[in-house]
Amino acid sequence: MPRITDTRQRMVRTAAGLLRRQGYAATGWRQVVAESHTPWGSQAHHFPGGKEQLAAEAIGLSGARYERLLLGVLDDAHPAAAVRLWSKVAADELEKSGWADGCPVATVALETAHSSTTLGAACDDAFTSWRDAFVGAMTRRGLRRAEATSLATLVLAGIEGALLLSRARRDGEPLRTVGKELERLLRDRVP
Amino acid sequence: MPRITDTRQRMVRTAAGLLRRQGYAATGWRQVVAESHTPWGSQAHHFPGGKEQLAAEAIGLSGARYERLLLGVLDDAHPAAAVRLWSKVAADELEKSGWADGCPVATVALETAHSSTTLGAACDDAFTSWRDAFVGAMTRRGLRRAEATSLATLVLAGIEGALLLSRARRDGEPLRTVGKELERLLRDRVP
Repeated sequence: MPRITDTRQRMVRTAAGLLRRQGYAATGWRQVVAESHTPWGSQAHHFPGGKEQLAAEAIGLSGARYERLLLGVLDDAHPAAAVRLWSKVAADELEKSGWADGCPVATVALETAHSSTTLGAACDDAFTSWRDAFVGAMTRRGLRRAEATSLATLVLAGIEGALLLSRARRDGEPLRTVGKELERLLRDRVP
Repeated sequence: MPRITDTRQRMVRTAAGLLRRQGYAATGWRQVVAESHTPWGSQAHHFPGGKEQLAAEAIGLSGARYERLLLGVLDDAHPAAAVRLWSKVAADELEKSGWADGCPVATVALETAHSSTTLGAACDDAFTSWRDAFVGAMTRRGLRRAEATSLATLVLAGIEGALLLSRARRDGEPLRTVGKELERLLRDRVP
Protein backbone atom coordinates (compact mmCIF):
# COMPACT_ATOMS: atom_id res chain seq x y z
CA MET A 1 0.00 0.00 0.00
CA PRO A 2 1.32 3.48 -0.75
CA ARG A 3 1.79 5.72 2.26
CA ILE A 4 -0.77 8.44 2.84
CA THR A 5 1.76 11.14 1.90
CA ASP A 6 2.15 9.43 -1.50
CA THR A 7 -1.59 9.81 -2.07
CA ARG A 8 -1.34 13.54 -1.50
CA GLN A 9 1.75 13.92 -3.69
CA ARG A 10 0.23 11.86 -6.50
CA MET A 11 -2.85 14.07 -6.50
CA VAL A 12 -0.75 17.25 -6.72
CA ARG A 13 1.41 15.81 -9.53
CA THR A 14 -1.65 14.62 -11.47
CA ALA A 15 -3.37 17.98 -11.03
CA ALA A 16 -0.24 19.78 -12.28
CA GLY A 17 -0.35 17.78 -15.53
CA LEU A 18 -4.08 18.30 -16.04
CA LEU A 19 -3.92 22.05 -15.33
CA ARG A 20 -1.13 22.35 -17.90
CA ARG A 21 -3.11 20.55 -20.61
CA GLN A 22 -6.68 21.72 -20.06
CA GLY A 23 -6.75 24.46 -17.42
CA TYR A 24 -8.64 24.98 -14.16
CA ALA A 25 -12.32 24.99 -15.13
CA ALA A 26 -12.05 21.75 -17.12
CA THR A 27 -10.19 19.89 -14.36
CA GLY A 28 -12.49 18.21 -11.82
CA TRP A 29 -11.86 16.07 -8.74
CA ARG A 30 -13.22 13.00 -10.52
CA GLN A 31 -10.48 13.12 -13.14
CA VAL A 32 -7.74 13.94 -10.61
CA VAL A 33 -8.77 11.00 -8.41
CA ALA A 34 -9.07 8.60 -11.37
CA GLU A 35 -5.75 9.54 -13.00
CA SER A 36 -3.80 9.63 -9.73
CA HIS A 37 -5.21 6.21 -8.73
CA THR A 38 -6.10 7.49 -5.29
CA PRO A 39 -9.20 6.57 -3.27
CA TRP A 40 -12.31 8.71 -3.68
CA GLY A 41 -12.85 10.68 -0.49
CA SER A 42 -9.17 11.26 0.18
CA GLN A 43 -9.38 14.70 -1.44
CA ALA A 44 -11.44 16.17 1.40
CA HIS A 45 -8.91 14.90 3.94
CA HIS A 46 -5.84 16.13 2.09
CA PHE A 47 -7.21 19.35 0.64
CA PRO A 48 -9.71 20.94 3.03
CA GLY A 49 -9.39 24.13 0.94
CA GLY A 50 -10.90 22.28 -2.02
CA LYS A 51 -9.87 22.43 -5.67
CA GLU A 52 -8.38 25.89 -5.19
CA GLN A 53 -5.90 24.53 -2.62
CA LEU A 54 -4.99 21.57 -4.82
CA ALA A 55 -4.44 23.85 -7.83
CA ALA A 56 -2.33 26.33 -5.82
CA GLU A 57 -0.07 23.47 -4.70
CA ALA A 58 0.12 22.06 -8.24
CA ILE A 59 1.12 25.49 -9.60
CA GLY A 60 3.74 25.71 -6.82
CA LEU A 61 5.14 22.31 -7.83
CA SER A 62 5.30 23.24 -11.54
CA GLY A 63 6.81 26.62 -10.73
CA ALA A 64 9.59 25.12 -8.60
CA ARG A 65 10.37 22.45 -11.21
CA TYR A 66 10.78 25.02 -13.99
CA GLU A 67 12.77 27.33 -11.74
CA ARG A 68 15.29 24.51 -11.08
CA LEU A 69 15.59 23.84 -14.82
CA LEU A 70 16.19 27.51 -15.61
CA LEU A 71 18.71 27.99 -12.77
CA GLY A 72 20.58 24.89 -13.96
CA VAL A 73 20.84 26.13 -17.55
CA LEU A 74 21.70 29.70 -16.52
CA ASP A 75 24.48 28.43 -14.25
CA ASP A 76 26.55 27.49 -17.30
CA ALA A 77 25.12 29.32 -20.29
CA HIS A 78 24.91 33.00 -21.26
CA PRO A 79 21.29 34.21 -20.88
CA ALA A 80 21.13 34.60 -24.67
CA ALA A 81 21.95 30.91 -25.16
CA ALA A 82 19.59 29.93 -22.33
CA VAL A 83 16.59 31.69 -23.86
CA ARG A 84 17.29 30.14 -27.26
CA LEU A 85 17.48 26.69 -25.64
CA TRP A 86 14.29 27.36 -23.63
CA SER A 87 12.34 28.27 -26.77
CA LYS A 88 13.63 25.18 -28.59
CA VAL A 89 12.83 22.76 -25.74
CA ALA A 90 9.38 24.33 -25.32
CA ALA A 91 8.64 23.97 -29.05
CA ASP A 92 9.74 20.32 -28.99
CA GLU A 93 7.63 19.53 -25.90
CA LEU A 94 4.58 21.19 -27.42
CA GLU A 95 4.94 19.34 -30.69
CA LYS A 96 5.52 15.92 -29.06
CA SER A 97 2.44 16.36 -26.85
CA GLY A 98 0.09 17.27 -29.71
CA TRP A 99 0.17 20.98 -28.70
CA ALA A 100 -1.07 20.16 -25.19
CA ASP A 101 1.98 20.62 -22.94
CA GLY A 102 2.68 24.34 -22.94
CA CYS A 103 3.31 26.52 -19.91
CA PRO A 104 2.07 24.73 -16.75
CA VAL A 105 0.92 28.02 -15.19
CA ALA A 106 -0.41 30.27 -17.98
CA THR A 107 -3.86 28.75 -18.57
CA VAL A 108 -4.77 28.80 -14.88
CA ALA A 109 -3.42 32.36 -14.57
CA LEU A 110 -5.68 33.63 -17.36
CA GLU A 111 -8.76 31.71 -16.23
CA THR A 112 -8.63 32.66 -12.57
CA ALA A 113 -6.84 36.03 -12.38
CA HIS A 114 -10.03 37.95 -11.67
CA SER A 115 -11.74 35.32 -9.51
CA SER A 116 -9.10 33.90 -7.13
CA THR A 117 -6.42 35.90 -5.35
CA THR A 118 -4.98 32.61 -4.01
CA LEU A 119 -4.39 31.21 -7.49
CA GLY A 120 -3.29 34.58 -8.86
CA ALA A 121 -0.62 34.77 -6.15
CA ALA A 122 0.53 31.18 -6.81
CA CYS A 123 0.87 31.93 -10.54
CA ASP A 124 2.64 35.23 -9.89
CA ASP A 125 5.11 33.50 -7.52
CA ALA A 126 5.98 30.99 -10.26
CA PHE A 127 6.40 33.66 -12.96
CA THR A 128 8.47 35.86 -10.66
CA SER A 129 10.82 32.99 -9.77
CA TRP A 130 11.43 32.32 -13.48
CA ARG A 131 12.04 36.00 -14.19
CA ASP A 132 14.41 36.23 -11.24
CA ALA A 133 16.45 33.29 -12.53
CA PHE A 134 17.27 35.53 -15.53
CA VAL A 135 17.73 38.64 -13.37
CA GLY A 136 20.33 36.78 -11.28
CA ALA A 137 22.22 35.54 -14.34
CA MET A 138 22.25 39.05 -15.87
CA THR A 139 23.39 40.88 -12.73
CA ARG A 140 26.20 38.30 -12.24
CA ARG A 141 27.38 39.40 -15.69
CA GLY A 142 27.43 43.03 -14.69
CA LEU A 143 24.00 44.41 -15.65
CA ARG A 144 22.39 46.81 -13.19
CA ARG A 145 19.43 45.23 -11.37
CA ALA A 146 16.82 47.64 -12.81
CA GLU A 147 17.88 46.96 -16.40
CA ALA A 148 18.17 43.21 -15.75
CA THR A 149 14.64 43.14 -14.30
CA SER A 150 13.25 45.02 -17.29
CA LEU A 151 15.00 42.76 -19.82
CA ALA A 152 14.07 39.58 -17.93
CA THR A 153 10.42 40.67 -17.90
CA LEU A 154 10.54 40.94 -21.70
CA VAL A 155 12.23 37.53 -21.96
CA LEU A 156 9.56 35.83 -19.85
CA ALA A 157 6.68 37.68 -21.55
CA GLY A 158 8.11 36.83 -24.98
CA ILE A 159 8.43 33.12 -24.23
CA GLU A 160 4.98 32.96 -22.61
CA GLY A 161 3.40 34.79 -25.54
CA ALA A 162 5.21 32.60 -28.06
CA LEU A 163 3.99 29.46 -26.28
CA LEU A 164 0.47 30.83 -26.72
CA LEU A 165 0.95 31.64 -30.43
CA SER A 166 2.55 28.26 -31.12
CA ARG A 167 -0.29 26.39 -29.41
CA ALA A 168 -2.95 28.26 -31.37
CA ARG A 169 -1.11 27.67 -34.66
CA ARG A 170 0.00 24.12 -33.80
CA ASP A 171 3.42 25.08 -35.08
CA GLY A 172 6.67 25.63 -33.19
CA GLU A 173 7.68 28.46 -35.52
CA PRO A 174 6.54 31.42 -33.33
CA LEU A 175 8.55 29.98 -30.41
CA ARG A 176 11.67 29.52 -32.52
CA THR A 177 11.33 33.03 -34.01
CA VAL A 178 10.92 34.66 -30.60
CA GLY A 179 13.84 32.59 -29.26
CA LYS A 180 16.09 33.94 -32.01
CA GLU A 181 14.95 37.55 -31.51
CA LEU A 182 15.48 37.40 -27.75
CA GLU A 183 18.87 35.71 -28.20
CA ARG A 184 19.97 38.56 -30.48
CA LEU A 185 18.70 41.18 -28.01
CA LEU A 186 20.47 39.61 -25.02
CA ARG A 187 23.74 39.24 -26.97
CA ASP A 188 23.54 43.01 -27.58
CA ARG A 189 22.71 44.04 -24.04
CA VAL A 190 24.14 41.49 -21.59
CA PRO A 191 27.99 41.51 -21.19
CA MET B 1 -39.27 43.16 -30.80
CA PRO B 2 -35.63 42.83 -31.88
CA ARG B 3 -35.11 41.25 -35.26
CA ILE B 4 -33.84 37.67 -35.34
CA THR B 5 -30.44 38.81 -36.64
CA ASP B 6 -30.08 40.97 -33.52
CA THR B 7 -30.56 37.88 -31.36
CA ARG B 8 -27.69 36.16 -33.10
CA GLN B 9 -25.40 39.20 -32.93
CA ARG B 10 -26.19 39.79 -29.27
CA MET B 11 -25.27 36.20 -28.44
CA VAL B 12 -21.93 36.49 -30.27
CA ARG B 13 -21.10 39.82 -28.58
CA THR B 14 -22.03 38.47 -25.14
CA ALA B 15 -19.98 35.32 -25.72
CA ALA B 16 -16.98 37.44 -26.77
CA GLY B 17 -17.08 39.31 -23.45
CA LEU B 18 -17.49 36.14 -21.38
CA LEU B 19 -14.69 34.29 -23.19
CA ARG B 20 -12.38 37.23 -22.55
CA ARG B 21 -13.11 37.29 -18.81
CA GLN B 22 -13.46 33.65 -17.89
CA GLY B 23 -12.52 31.45 -20.85
CA TYR B 24 -14.22 28.64 -22.76
CA ALA B 25 -14.80 25.92 -20.18
CA ALA B 26 -16.43 28.29 -17.67
CA THR B 27 -18.78 29.83 -20.27
CA GLY B 28 -22.06 27.96 -20.71
CA TRP B 29 -25.13 28.55 -22.85
CA ARG B 30 -27.18 29.40 -19.79
CA GLN B 31 -25.02 32.43 -19.01
CA VAL B 32 -24.79 33.50 -22.68
CA VAL B 33 -28.58 33.38 -23.05
CA ALA B 34 -29.19 35.18 -19.75
CA GLU B 35 -26.67 37.98 -20.32
CA SER B 36 -27.62 38.53 -23.98
CA HIS B 37 -31.33 38.68 -23.04
CA THR B 38 -32.22 36.26 -25.82
CA PRO B 39 -34.86 33.52 -25.66
CA TRP B 40 -33.79 30.06 -24.48
CA GLY B 41 -33.88 27.68 -27.45
CA SER B 42 -32.67 30.25 -29.96
CA GLN B 43 -29.10 28.95 -29.61
CA ALA B 44 -29.87 25.67 -31.38
CA HIS B 45 -31.40 27.57 -34.29
CA HIS B 46 -28.60 30.09 -34.66
CA PHE B 47 -25.63 27.89 -33.78
CA PRO B 48 -26.20 24.34 -35.04
CA GLY B 49 -22.48 23.74 -34.47
CA GLY B 50 -23.00 24.29 -30.75
CA LYS B 51 -20.82 26.19 -28.31
CA GLU B 52 -17.75 25.63 -30.49
CA GLN B 53 -19.40 27.52 -33.38
CA LEU B 54 -20.51 30.36 -31.09
CA ALA B 55 -17.01 30.67 -29.63
CA ALA B 56 -15.33 30.62 -33.05
CA GLU B 57 -17.57 33.50 -34.19
CA ALA B 58 -16.95 35.41 -30.95
CA ILE B 59 -13.18 35.02 -31.39
CA GLY B 60 -13.58 36.22 -35.00
CA LEU B 61 -15.48 39.30 -33.80
CA SER B 62 -12.88 40.14 -31.15
CA GLY B 63 -10.04 39.52 -33.59
CA ALA B 64 -11.51 41.87 -36.22
CA ARG B 65 -12.23 44.59 -33.63
CA TYR B 66 -8.62 44.57 -32.36
CA GLU B 67 -7.23 44.41 -35.89
CA ARG B 68 -9.14 47.61 -36.78
CA LEU B 69 -7.80 49.36 -33.67
CA LEU B 70 -4.21 48.35 -34.45
CA LEU B 71 -4.46 49.31 -38.12
CA GLY B 72 -5.90 52.69 -37.11
CA VAL B 73 -3.05 53.45 -34.70
CA LEU B 74 -0.36 52.14 -37.08
CA ASP B 75 -1.70 54.32 -39.88
CA ASP B 76 -0.39 57.42 -38.10
CA ALA B 77 2.16 56.29 -35.54
CA HIS B 78 5.59 54.70 -35.79
CA PRO B 79 5.35 51.01 -34.73
CA ALA B 80 7.49 51.87 -31.68
CA ALA B 81 4.92 54.45 -30.52
CA ALA B 82 2.04 52.10 -31.37
CA VAL B 83 3.37 49.25 -29.22
CA ARG B 84 3.95 51.62 -26.30
CA LEU B 85 0.38 52.90 -26.64
CA TRP B 86 -0.99 49.34 -26.94
CA SER B 87 0.72 48.28 -23.71
CA LYS B 88 -0.55 51.37 -21.89
CA VAL B 89 -4.17 50.97 -23.08
CA ALA B 90 -4.09 47.26 -22.23
CA ALA B 91 -2.78 47.97 -18.72
CA ASP B 92 -5.50 50.60 -18.17
CA GLU B 93 -8.27 48.26 -19.41
CA LEU B 94 -7.05 45.44 -17.20
CA GLU B 95 -6.89 47.64 -14.12
CA LYS B 96 -10.31 49.22 -14.71
CA SER B 97 -11.94 45.79 -15.13
CA GLY B 98 -10.47 44.32 -11.93
CA TRP B 99 -7.89 42.31 -13.94
CA ALA B 100 -10.62 40.58 -15.95
CA ASP B 101 -10.46 42.18 -19.41
CA GLY B 102 -7.20 40.99 -20.92
CA CYS B 103 -6.68 39.54 -24.38
CA PRO B 104 -10.06 38.39 -25.78
CA VAL B 105 -8.43 35.40 -27.53
CA ALA B 106 -5.62 34.10 -25.29
CA THR B 107 -7.57 32.16 -22.67
CA VAL B 108 -9.60 30.25 -25.26
CA ALA B 109 -6.42 29.56 -27.27
CA LEU B 110 -4.68 27.98 -24.28
CA GLU B 111 -7.70 26.00 -23.11
CA THR B 112 -8.66 24.52 -26.46
CA ALA B 113 -5.45 24.33 -28.54
CA HIS B 114 -5.15 20.57 -28.18
CA SER B 115 -8.85 19.73 -28.28
CA SER B 116 -10.43 21.85 -31.06
CA THR B 117 -8.87 22.55 -34.44
CA THR B 118 -11.81 24.89 -35.20
CA LEU B 119 -11.09 27.12 -32.21
CA GLY B 120 -7.33 26.84 -32.67
CA ALA B 121 -7.72 28.12 -36.24
CA ALA B 122 -10.02 30.98 -35.16
CA CYS B 123 -7.49 32.06 -32.50
CA ASP B 124 -4.57 31.74 -34.93
CA ASP B 125 -6.43 33.87 -37.52
CA ALA B 126 -6.90 36.62 -34.94
CA PHE B 127 -3.28 36.55 -33.76
CA THR B 128 -1.99 36.49 -37.34
CA SER B 129 -4.10 39.51 -38.32
CA TRP B 130 -2.66 41.50 -35.37
CA ARG B 131 0.90 40.45 -36.23
CA ASP B 132 0.33 41.38 -39.87
CA ALA B 133 -0.87 44.87 -38.90
CA PHE B 134 2.66 45.42 -37.54
CA VAL B 135 4.32 43.64 -40.49
CA GLY B 136 2.53 46.03 -42.90
CA ALA B 137 3.55 49.11 -40.93
CA MET B 138 7.17 47.97 -40.78
CA THR B 139 7.50 47.05 -44.46
CA ARG B 140 5.96 50.42 -45.43
CA ARG B 141 8.88 51.96 -43.53
CA GLY B 142 11.39 49.95 -45.51
CA LEU B 143 12.00 46.79 -43.48
CA ARG B 144 12.31 43.54 -45.45
CA ARG B 145 9.27 41.29 -45.01
CA ALA B 146 11.20 38.47 -43.31
CA GLU B 147 12.69 40.77 -40.69
CA ALA B 148 9.36 42.57 -40.19
CA THR B 149 7.58 39.25 -39.63
CA SER B 150 10.17 38.14 -37.09
CA LEU B 151 10.05 41.45 -35.17
CA ALA B 152 6.24 41.61 -35.29
CA THR B 153 6.07 38.07 -33.87
CA LEU B 154 8.18 39.22 -30.90
CA VAL B 155 5.97 42.31 -30.46
CA LEU B 156 2.78 40.26 -30.35
CA ALA B 157 4.29 37.54 -28.14
CA GLY B 158 5.68 40.18 -25.77
CA ILE B 159 2.35 41.97 -25.38
CA GLU B 160 0.42 38.70 -24.97
CA GLY B 161 2.90 37.43 -22.39
CA ALA B 162 2.86 40.75 -20.54
CA LEU B 163 -0.95 40.68 -20.40
CA LEU B 164 -0.65 37.27 -18.75
CA LEU B 165 1.97 38.44 -16.23
CA SER B 166 -0.01 41.58 -15.40
CA ARG B 167 -3.20 39.60 -14.84
CA ALA B 168 -1.49 37.12 -12.50
CA ARG B 169 0.15 39.93 -10.53
CA ARG B 170 -2.85 42.27 -10.67
CA ASP B 171 -0.44 45.02 -11.59
CA GLY B 172 0.04 46.84 -14.89
CA GLU B 173 3.81 47.07 -14.35
CA PRO B 174 4.84 44.05 -16.51
CA LEU B 175 2.80 45.48 -19.42
CA ARG B 176 4.36 48.93 -19.07
CA THR B 177 7.87 47.44 -18.78
CA VAL B 178 7.44 45.26 -21.87
CA GLY B 179 5.94 48.22 -23.76
CA LYS B 180 9.04 50.31 -23.01
CA GLU B 181 11.44 47.50 -23.98
CA LEU B 182 9.62 46.84 -27.26
CA GLU B 183 9.44 50.57 -28.02
CA ARG B 184 13.22 50.83 -27.59
CA LEU B 185 13.81 47.78 -29.80
CA LEU B 186 11.57 49.06 -32.60
CA ARG B 187 13.18 52.53 -32.49
CA ASP B 188 16.51 50.77 -33.08
CA ARG B 189 15.41 48.50 -35.89
CA VAL B 190 12.53 50.12 -37.78
CA PRO B 191 13.45 53.16 -39.99
